Amino acid sequence: MNKESFFPKSIKAALQNNPPGEWIPSVPANAIRLHSGYPAPLLVPSKELKEAVAQLLDEESDLPLHYIGSPRIDKLKEWVRMRQEVRAMPSNDEEILITAGACQAIDLIARIFLDKDAVVVVESPTYMEALEIFQNYTDQIITVPIDQDGLQTEKLAEMLANRKEKGLTKPSFLYTIPTFHNPTGTTMTEERRRHVLELAEEYDFLVLEDDAYGELGFINNPKTIKSLDTEDRVLYVGSLSKVVAPGMRIGWVHATDKFIQALFWFKKDLEHPFAQATMATLLENTDFIGRLEALSKTYQGKCQVMLAALEKYLPEVASWFVPEGGYFVWVKIPGVDTEELLAKATEEGVSFLPGKYFFLDQTEGTEYLRLSFSYESEENILKGIQKLGNVVHSSIK
Amino acid sequence: MNKESFFPKSIKAALQNNPPGEWIPSVPANAIRLHSGYPAPLLVPSKELKEAVAQLLDEESDLPLHYIGSPRIDKLKEWVRMRQEVRAMPSNDEEILITAGACQAIDLIARIFLDKDAVVVVESPTYMEALEIFQNYTDQIITVPIDQDGLQTEKLAEMLANRKEKGLTKPSFLYTIPTFHNPTGTTMTEERRRHVLELAEEYDFLVLEDDAYGELGFINNPKTIKSLDTEDRVLYVGSLSKVVAPGMRIGWVHATDKFIQALFWFKKDLEHPFAQATMATLLENTDFIGRLEALSKTYQGKCQVMLAALEKYLPEVASWFVPEGGYFVWVKIPGVDTEELLAKATEEGVSFLPGKYFFLDQTEGTEYLRLSFSYESEENILKGIQKLGNVVHSSIK
Repeated sequence: MNKESFFPKSIKAALQNNPPGEWIPSVPANAIRLHSGYPAPLLVPSKELKEAVAQLLDEESDLPLHYIGSPRIDKLKEWVRMRQEVRAMPSNDEEILITAGACQAIDLIARIFLDKDAVVVVESPTYMEALEIFQNYTDQIITVPIDQDGLQTEKLAEMLANRKEKGLTKPSFLYTIPTFHNPTGTTMTEERRRHVLELAEEYDFLVLEDDAYGELGFINNPKTIKSLDTEDRVLYVGSLSKVVAPGMRIGWVHATDKFIQALFWFKKDLEHPFAQATMATLLENTDFIGRLEALSKTYQGKCQVMLAALEKYLPEVASWFVPEGGYFVWVKIPGVDTEELLAKATEEGVSFLPGKYFFLDQTEGTEYLRLSFSYESEENILKGIQKLGNVVHSSIK
Repeated sequence: MNKESFFPKSIKAALQNNPPGEWIPSVPANAIRLHSGYPAPLLVPSKELKEAVAQLLDEESDLPLHYIGSPRIDKLKEWVRMRQEVRAMPSNDEEILITAGACQAIDLIARIFLDKDAVVVVESPTYMEALEIFQNYTDQIITVPIDQDGLQTEKLAEMLANRKEKGLTKPSFLYTIPTFHNPTGTTMTEERRRHVLELAEEYDFLVLEDDAYGELGFINNPKTIKSLDTEDRVLYVGSLSKVVAPGMRIGWVHATDKFIQALFWFKKDLEHPFAQATMATLLENTDFIGRLEALSKTYQGKCQVMLAALEKYLPEVASWFVPEGGYFVWVKIPGVDTEELLAKATEEGVSFLPGKYFFLDQTEGTEYLRLSFSYESEENILKGIQKLGNVVHSSIK
């Protein structure tokens, strides 16, 4: 039996890409983990979740354990709509789809808008999981670079004008993480956000706004692109992974009803009643604004420690963007191959993510690395950067 | 903005099918629910789940709330492998993929094997969710009828020979629920199971074996097709929905490593650590064999009550298959349109599922209905069938 022969051509092509999760480094258990985009362990509401499950099952008995039936499935959606409204994104019930995290949301959006002839635009660098997803559908992925102010929309405009002039296929959508970007930590200016929407209208494409970090600003949270969108061009993806707990797998899409209906058509894992009802119960009992404030304060403190340590321990040639929120610092070290550096760093007892995984053309990313300040304690962050400094210095000389 | 214009052709075509979940009837809250394929409420381990979550979070703290990290994610897979082995389906670690229920598993399998030119064979009637899934990928779905002994493999053989003679595309896979079939309750004989495998080899197609009900035999559980498969042609789909709780969304695929790797490539909702680790903890504390015995005894009792009531209250012309396990009785009432009957039945206070939803060509199903004996108490089953008898009699005369 020829197993390969059962895969259609498009699947065979996708299986030629780098394997999913290839970027996850093998890190010794006692290493300081600056590679993981995990929330701070102390801020994960483990105790509160235990209480939420107890309350849920006491009150609803077997209801959240069937396919449908728990009233809290609707309550979770209502909570999401309430948060969207607070953030200037009012919705009706047909405009929200609860998903198993942001990744499933992005994959479903790719599923309904992309075929092998479709064109997608992504920021460069961008979220590696999103790259993996889009590469499962098309090999026509166009990258537009990021700077301190986010996506360089002038370059986006140039590319679009060029393609139009040449009669090339217009993009189906632009995938962007405008706020506290993964991996660069940068935030798109409001001017550029408006420019994105103008271009979307002019060249008739959609915008997939990934806002996983959008409420994690140290000082404030910028307006989402969706909140500026008067044309229903934005498919907004939200997530509770970074503000509550990734292990619960709760995210959502907010988009025009026609698109939500199509996403629902292809979402075949059904509702997740236990996870959704547990989350709804937890949120009932949570002072969410207070929670966001605590997260913001903690992550700002950790970020400051990391930035100060980078100043102190990294050589002059290294540079980075200063984040105003989120989880990440994006570091450039000219002349260093960060993949090779990682092997030495984990030996020294610290991890990070090599930059190459965030680029479509991985050769562009060899001098970059992503550091997460979210997971480790301030003390460990300081130690970790010191260790990183040591291996960088020994790699440069 | 023309919203339709953003959908590729294949998506537009799929959106012309019947909407997902169209089959879910609107049933008054106090009606006797014979339409739902839900487990018996008293057998859903609600209390045990509460304890499992408490134990899990006490022991692992934040671990099951991150993306990865809980050792119980692996433990769940080990448990599945143990159960597969007990059932004569030994595996290695690369041959199992945990999914969010059987539906996600079926959808992923469709995703990697079907494109718009692909051909799928299904039993007629078959599981309506699977029909919905396959119709999202291709419109070349071939049906082969079922009788008391399951899929009529002679008819399958004829069809395959015919297609070969005409030079038509061979099927990518056959989707079958050989054991305690949904909706008919029938079970494929071992002879036919072997015939399926012979045909799969001869005509070079795969077999998608949906075994959601496979451990719910009243007397015994037949050998799975997978356990007879010497060629790795079977993609086996298992589920804990019918034996533990559907709201947890835990299922799996057991197949050759090459196929599992491809499924993993396209599974973009990531692991579900909280649900998976909770299930692993629950199973650690569960006498699973004892649980299966209790389920079997309970469902056998309910089934007997339903069959006796059907004999008593339904007119002579009605007929049904006698199930040896599972959740369902499939009833034929010549001369009655079961969709019209449902409106009267819910008014009377009882529900069922009209047969048409289980057929690709819905006109074939108008005289059939599916009854579930799993959810309601014996007392309610008796009352429900009595009510059903009343509306059938008044519909026939």
